[in-house]
Amino acid sequence: MNTALTASGILTKRENSMKIYEASTAPNARRVRMFLAEKNVDMEYVQLDIAAGENLNSENRAKNPTTKIPFLELDDGTCIGETLAICRYFEETVSDNPLMGRTPLEKAQVEMWQRRVEFYFMMQVGMCFQHSTGYFKDRMTPVPEYGAVAGKAATKYLDDLNAQLADSKYLVGDYFSIADINLICALDFARVVKIKMSDEHTHLLRWYQDVSARPSAKA
Amino acid sequence: MNTALTASGILTKRENSMKIYEASTAPNARRVRMFLAEKNVDMEYVQLDIAAGENLNSENRAKNPTTKIPFLELDDGTCIGETLAICRYFEETVSDNPLMGRTPLEKAQVEMWQRRVEFYFMMQVGMCFQHSTGYFKDRMTPVPEYGAVAGKAATKYLDDLNAQLADSKYLVGDYFSIADINLICALDFARVVKIKMSDEHTHLLRWYQDVSARPSAKA
Repeated sequence: MNTALTASGILTKRENSMKIYEASTAPNARRVRMFLAEKNVDMEYVQLDIAAGENLNSENRAKNPTTKIPFLELDDGTCIGETLAICRYFEETVSDNPLMGRTPLEKAQVEMWQRRVEFYFMMQVGMCFQHSTGYFKDRMTPVPEYGAVAGKAATKYLDDLNAQLADSKYLVGDYFSIADINLICALDFARVVKIKMSDEHTHLLRWYQDVSARPSAKA
Repeated sequence: MNTALTASGILTKRENSMKIYEASTAPNARRVRMFLAEKNVDMEYVQLDIAAGENLNSENRAKNPTTKIPFLELDDGTCIGETLAICRYFEETVSDNPLMGRTPLEKAQVEMWQRRVEFYFMMQVGMCFQHSTGYFKDRMTPVPEYGAVAGKAATKYLDDLNAQLADSKYLVGDYFSIADINLICALDFARVVKIKMSDEHTHLLRWYQDVSARPSAKA
């Protein structure tokens, strides 16, 4: 990325570069890439081999103690972890295409749907993945019974999402937002654990086709 | 509460009233009360008996389909669920005492710490509570083995929080924020499942005493 914050908070061209450390197939990494694509932010992405534990080494742990990806490194070395915190940074510094709401009420509604997607769907999918597959069993204790419970909860929440989209183009009315980005990234990742929309989810399927067709969905 | 949004987005006195539906002992309810106390927002709180399932009845489900508390009802009947979405609404409409950051970088850092507290501590405490105690066993499937895993993860994360507070008055430097509110509410709730700071957590204990002494902590 060839832009950086000046003291006035305006993004300008400069030679040093911000970086995002990520793993391209991880759903949280895609959330950030899609968010930045919607805002036309060009970024340098550095791949970490999370299966081999590259995110756990001392250099990366010093930058981001949780060891989760993605994380953002600013030009001065300041690091920001957590998907939503990275998105918040660019929402505040790049005025193009606000994705977290334009009025106080809309900002609250976006936060509400962002979190509903996250807690009742994406996180359940993630728990199903981690606890059912044992993918990270070297660094956590998988409980397969809980993985199955989480997977069922995620599948059940698809009905609620379908209901919300019955009268609404996007999760928050006609306004495409970070909540929609979260949902499509979570839905695509959910296929790994065989959690899928059914033919009865007509509104969700219509929404899925629409959002999948955005250029940012390929980011 | 005797204030409401005008079309210009400014809070003004009026006769109708917003309400927050909650259960006073729930940690998420306290997060919102403490947030509003810090911002000097007077609010009407309506108690729901969640043990008896009052949040699950059709009237409340229509207002907030997730059935979680707290949720906010605006004067025009619009409802906002999710703790952070309620806080966001008041952060955007009440300019006193910003608690979600004052600059782009600080907003990102607050979001980062808010989410770290939430995902790596509060949520683990909540999972430990729900899966170990069976408190909500009529409406979910407790997996006690997972409750124990979550409790251990929460306890382990206290070391990381203590480390962050070694050189920092609050979680984000000298700036008291919603991240600190989340942490104290989670820490106090954690005692229910016997997750406590140890004498070795000297920085966290210093922070805890400081934040507990704020008038808002009694909200």
